[in-house]
Amino acid sequence: MGKKEKQFVEEITPMEVDFAQWYTDVIKKTDMVDYSPVKGFMVIKPYGYAIWENIQQFMDKRFKDTGHKNCYFPLLIPESLLQKEAEHVEGFAPEVAWVTHGGNEELAERLCVRPTSETIICSMYSKWLDSYRDLPFLYNQWCSVVRWEKSTRPFLRTSEFLWQEGHTLHETYDEAQEETLQMLGIYKETAEELLAIPVITGQKTEREKFAGAYATYTMEALMHDGKALQAGTSHNLGQHFTKAFDISFLDRDGTLKNPYHTSWGVSTRLIGGIIMVHGDNRGLALPPGIAPTQAVIVPVASHKEGVSEAAEKIYEELRYDFRTEIDDRDQYSPGWKFNEWEMKGVPVRIEIGPRDLENQQAVVFRRDTLEKQVCPLDQLKDTVSSLMKDIQKNLFEKAKAMREQNTHVATDAEMFKNIMKEKPGFVKTMWCGEESCELKVKEETGATIRCIPFEQEKLGETCPFCGEKADKMVYYAKAY
Amino acid sequence: MGKKEKQFVEEITPMEVDFAQWYTDVIKKTDMVDYSPVKGFMVIKPYGYAIWENIQQFMDKRFKDTGHKNCYFPLLIPESLLQKEAEHVEGFAPEVAWVTHGGNEELAERLCVRPTSETIICSMYSKWLDSYRDLPFLYNQWCSVVRWEKSTRPFLRTSEFLWQEGHTLHETYDEAQEETLQMLGIYKETAEELLAIPVITGQKTEREKFAGAYATYTMEALMHDGKALQAGTSHNLGQHFTKAFDISFLDRDGTLKNPYHTSWGVSTRLIGGIIMVHGDNRGLALPPGIAPTQAVIVPVASHKEGVSEAAEKIYEELRYDFRTEIDDRDQYSPGWKFNEWEMKGVPVRIEIGPRDLENQQAVVFRRDTLEKQVCPLDQLKDTVSSLMKDIQKNLFEKAKAMREQNTHVATDAEMFKNIMKEKPGFVKTMWCGEESCELKVKEETGATIRCIPFEQEKLGETCPFCGEKADKMVYYAKAY
Repeated sequence: MGKKEKQFVEEITPMEVDFAQWYTDVIKKTDMVDYSPVKGFMVIKPYGYAIWENIQQFMDKRFKDTGHKNCYFPLLIPESLLQKEAEHVEGFAPEVAWVTHGGNEELAERLCVRPTSETIICSMYSKWLDSYRDLPFLYNQWCSVVRWEKSTRPFLRTSEFLWQEGHTLHETYDEAQEETLQMLGIYKETAEELLAIPVITGQKTEREKFAGAYATYTMEALMHDGKALQAGTSHNLGQHFTKAFDISFLDRDGTLKNPYHTSWGVSTRLIGGIIMVHGDNRGLALPPGIAPTQAVIVPVASHKEGVSEAAEKIYEELRYDFRTEIDDRDQYSPGWKFNEWEMKGVPVRIEIGPRDLENQQAVVFRRDTLEKQVCPLDQLKDTVSSLMKDIQKNLFEKAKAMREQNTHVATDAEMFKNIMKEKPGFVKTMWCGEESCELKVKEETGATIRCIPFEQEKLGETCPFCGEKADKMVYYAKAY
Repeated sequence: MGKKEKQFVEEITPMEVDFAQWYTDVIKKTDMVDYSPVKGFMVIKPYGYAIWENIQQFMDKRFKDTGHKNCYFPLLIPESLLQKEAEHVEGFAPEVAWVTHGGNEELAERLCVRPTSETIICSMYSKWLDSYRDLPFLYNQWCSVVRWEKSTRPFLRTSEFLWQEGHTLHETYDEAQEETLQMLGIYKETAEELLAIPVITGQKTEREKFAGAYATYTMEALMHDGKALQAGTSHNLGQHFTKAFDISFLDRDGTLKNPYHTSWGVSTRLIGGIIMVHGDNRGLALPPGIAPTQAVIVPVASHKEGVSEAAEKIYEELRYDFRTEIDDRDQYSPGWKFNEWEMKGVPVRIEIGPRDLENQQAVVFRRDTLEKQVCPLDQLKDTVSSLMKDIQKNLFEKAKAMREQNTHVATDAEMFKNIMKEKPGFVKTMWCGEESCELKVKEETGATIRCIPFEQEKLGETCPFCGEKADKMVYYAKAY
């Protein structure tokens, strides 16, 4: 390995040494993101943005297949609207950006840049809804939101991020609850099938729920460093907002009622999850489903007769089925390119040189296992096709095994603290249901209840912290 | 026609009576848009937003096919960055919204909500560019921008709107100029082939160009009321910004140079153009290319045996090839539904009732010509398919004929003023090239030079206003 070839690998801090630095190195060196002149705001570069586009496409189809339509609501929300739902304003007011001047004039009322759009959307829904016949309202918007964060990290926590936010109204509580869980189901499908990230789904505690929600449901993923990432949430908002915003409809029985309400969102944070679940000390490892480039062709000794043409021919053969690139830059050596594409996490690399050409074959490298195989040229397309499926599946299985290895059971407080100190990850415990107990654990260990999972297990009869009777099992973890 | 059936038509103010009111009636009654609690900001409802999605899809593909990649830059721009390019700040500063507080703290420097992103993007490009090998930079972003407008109208001029903005860097002036014109070409293709709106392309005068541009190119369309709509612009920015922002690269000859720069954008304003070019006193008439619903099936007497099933069968037959809906609402009469779908501009309506079913046929109505035809059920798909092409073509031809009818030549000032008073539209004249002359015409008639078209005609030797020698032909019009 020459000096230049080694450069990439050396530049990434090993995750065992400093996980936060590893993350920063990976996102910067793979050209996914950059820091902007505005503190806490990030620029999403093409390589990061293309991943977001692939996520959008997958989800948007599923939103539409389940009857949702997209629309667009204003970026700016009057302060008086934000204040209408008491818990909501308490949760969000401390972290919004305020517009006070438009052009050269001071505004009569401050406007906040949307941190989330429940309030502005509810103000419109109250105009739009008349009769039970109008229900359900099934709308979604793709946009950016701003939350003024003190400490930020690209994708994971930034003062502006991209997301989608669905906002629906329903005639009955049961329908709203069904919608809430349906959308969480689509999020889980996105995480597991597209991003190859296994998730635990369940309900948030009162302490951890969305400001203004009746109940919040979540999917939680485990990162390489043993910390959890809240990867998507779906809220049953009950009638909290529909009452506060006077949204009502004439029901079948001739009486006026407030509808039931949900909202649900995932954001560019998912990209942080992809990095921290699949990445390694060589850089990214991207699931084929969202990889901007699924296969890259690197000609070796491309000045030799026939090599460029053979690479071009492979490109033409693959490009209609896979997002394919050919790397014909002449200022870099093949070794340098191999390292760069490995770092960028491209699932499959195809190398072709004069000797390969002689044998009518190519070398095929897969990023997830770092294995190379020789493949006859006439079988290349089939090989790449089955590799894509294999890699997608293998990344999911690896991530699941990693999560299982880092999921522990604690039946007493001492055990819990030791795990949190020595081998952090998910810790399953019974929980008494008391917020005071949950808060005490957080203060002592930094861990929070990630969720009360739908899949319950009976680990005992009592809460390991207070000794009271406990009939719920929860996942604790330190979290991003 | 019953009372309910007539309601729609009566509710839309005829365009001959009050064009502005006609426009407002149409956008409100067709559920494209609504006014929000923030003055000048609109809500784009699903029926309007779906049109934007169809435009996005068409354009995004063409951007990518020509090598552009999407990315995302911050919403907020520091005041000091906005001020770096002198003409630019002069043009935009009076109409931006200012964020002065984040959370509970006052910011050290005000941030403006982006009115356009040249400045923030250039600040990043100066970090990213090193060598001629990195060029060209071909990036685009889809986002919303805010410009504080005093007087607004949905889609046409609002304080927030959705758009795309492309920002590219090139090694040479010629490449930048080629890019500028290539993107204008894609805009023209979008307008004419997708939106069925014929456009005049050409260059803006110095007075009308973008704040900070070296040269601005535009496409201009003519609305039903004889006013022009600037429907998309592409700017060759020369080195104005790249010098102001210290963007440089090491060129092939080993010297540092400032690259050449372009930007180009179209916005949701295009939707206003679709309404005002194709609409009539019954409401919208949408080109099939962007219609959210291309074909609607209305069962007649659907309680009669077999009707619902037949409608369903047609739906299943059409839905994979066309954006199809079936209107089975039982609270409305077929006549009411016919009117509603006509108003919403759906290109093709299919009616099926018991008598049609007996004859194994359906009635097919086309929105553009208001013609009905009877069609055997087994030919329905082919008929709808060829109608889509016909309607798309016919709407374009009608719009072109309308434009030609309202395009006049003026060879003296008197003639010009009479046309502007009596039958406004495009007026072609020769122009001396003097800004003072252009300004005087604007003050006296309200008309501005829309562009110096690429397709020049020699209408005379002198400027009709000042009598000086003139070698350029221009299009004048009153404009939105």
